[in-house]
Amino acid sequence: MSKKPLILVTNDDGINAPGIRALISVMNTIGDVVVVAPDSPQSGMGHAITLNSTLYAEEIKIDNGPQKEFSCSGTPADCVKLGIRELVGRTPDLCVSGINHGSNASINVIYSGTMSAAIEAGIEGIPAIGFSLLNYNWEANFEACKAYVKTITKNVIENGLPNGVILNVNIPNIPKKEIKGIKVCRQAKANWVEKFDKRKTPQGRDYYWLAGKFVNLDGGEDTDEWALENGYVSLVPVQFDLTAHHFLKDLNGWKFNH
Amino acid sequence: MSKKPLILVTNDDGINAPGIRALISVMNTIGDVVVVAPDSPQSGMGHAITLNSTLYAEEIKIDNGPQKEFSCSGTPADCVKLGIRELVGRTPDLCVSGINHGSNASINVIYSGTMSAAIEAGIEGIPAIGFSLLNYNWEANFEACKAYVKTITKNVIENGLPNGVILNVNIPNIPKKEIKGIKVCRQAKANWVEKFDKRKTPQGRDYYWLAGKFVNLDGGEDTDEWALENGYVSLVPVQFDLTAHHFLKDLNGWKFNH
Repeated sequence: MSKKPLILVTNDDGINAPGIRALISVMNTIGDVVVVAPDSPQSGMGHAITLNSTLYAEEIKIDNGPQKEFSCSGTPADCVKLGIRELVGRTPDLCVSGINHGSNASINVIYSGTMSAAIEAGIEGIPAIGFSLLNYNWEANFEACKAYVKTITKNVIENGLPNGVILNVNIPNIPKKEIKGIKVCRQAKANWVEKFDKRKTPQGRDYYWLAGKFVNLDGGEDTDEWALENGYVSLVPVQFDLTAHHFLKDLNGWKFNH
Repeated sequence: MSKKPLILVTNDDGINAPGIRALISVMNTIGDVVVVAPDSPQSGMGHAITLNSTLYAEEIKIDNGPQKEFSCSGTPADCVKLGIRELVGRTPDLCVSGINHGSNASINVIYSGTMSAAIEAGIEGIPAIGFSLLNYNWEANFEACKAYVKTITKNVIENGLPNGVILNVNIPNIPKKEIKGIKVCRQAKANWVEKFDKRKTPQGRDYYWLAGKFVNLDGGEDTDEWALENGYVSLVPVQFDLTAHHFLKDLNGWKFNH
């Protein structure tokens, strides 16, 4: 590319999260950056969009970087929509989301605001990548991520992505020198075995906290969970055609009477 | 089945919506019904889950049917999790979600709380179906839907569904006698071309309403959008492995330097 690419940056942990600040610093070395990110944490928002209330977006300045930034009252998917249509000025060449504080590997891709923002950009025809570090702490150290974020982003800019393909990148929470490299993977078959912590309000009303245990049901060595457990950065290409193509033929054999 | 199946019913329009009341009335003719549904409308919630606040669920009675009902403060996906783990007592044989007021065909499956609830049940290993009528009005007439809801549900109970497959059923908004039947389809390639309606608050602050136009980019006659436009009930098998398997090989050819 002769011109610097225009990069839209977003996340789901909120515009002040250390993860997005690290992502912005890397993107500033690659292109012209516009940030449109939620004004407060939106973890677990999945692909939620705001249909029944209004959206605000304010231009703000958080650090001394060259990027332009907007803080938005909506969900991660709202940020991408509003960014592309109203705030950025022209269609971005790339959208990056994250760096998420916590894993978005395997089934977590479904619940992830970070990945939904990237997928929303993909639906709009924009090459997109979601980045996550396997550390839920606000004080997580994102330094080891930066080289991987940069090389994967540069590859996407050079090679492009097929229409409808988004990258889901997860980075293990280990020292940089222990990371073995990048591994292309499929999404592991895993799920959360939920428990609810039932409590009583001071007034005696029952309420619940969602709690759960992550269980990897997949023995394959070609999965993102395997890669992460074995010290690799996992790279899963993601798409948004949810059709279970393998079941179309069987379903056509069903008999419907009504 | 010798025993009556235990059916978990949920939706995203809220427990008082006419669509779920129609769905409950059909399910009462098929099995033992437990309803766990949001206490207020949750359209566009996607696969959001409640991580950072508490959940309430209250047993309530809305009509004279035999079903047990819980009104829940969470999202559709929360309702399914809480229902399965805390409220229903044993693992349901089936989960049905809807009948949604409005289409969940093509790309809408991604944004849909109705379908996310069904997918959540599918992740938990429970056969699940989402139903939607192509009419956004609260006063929509669900009578024409009922025979289709019943025959598809009975087929799922008789035939089962493979692990990880969920059905997405959309019903055209036309008189029952004009419906040509049920068509097994794939998800159409379509998207929303967003516009934002920019306004000013009485205090002069800019705000936005999301508005958009649905555009079907897919000329195929095997899609849900084609079926619905041509008077059929569309039946799409859905799965939650988002891996773009077709791109794994190409991605393995990328060169990463860091």
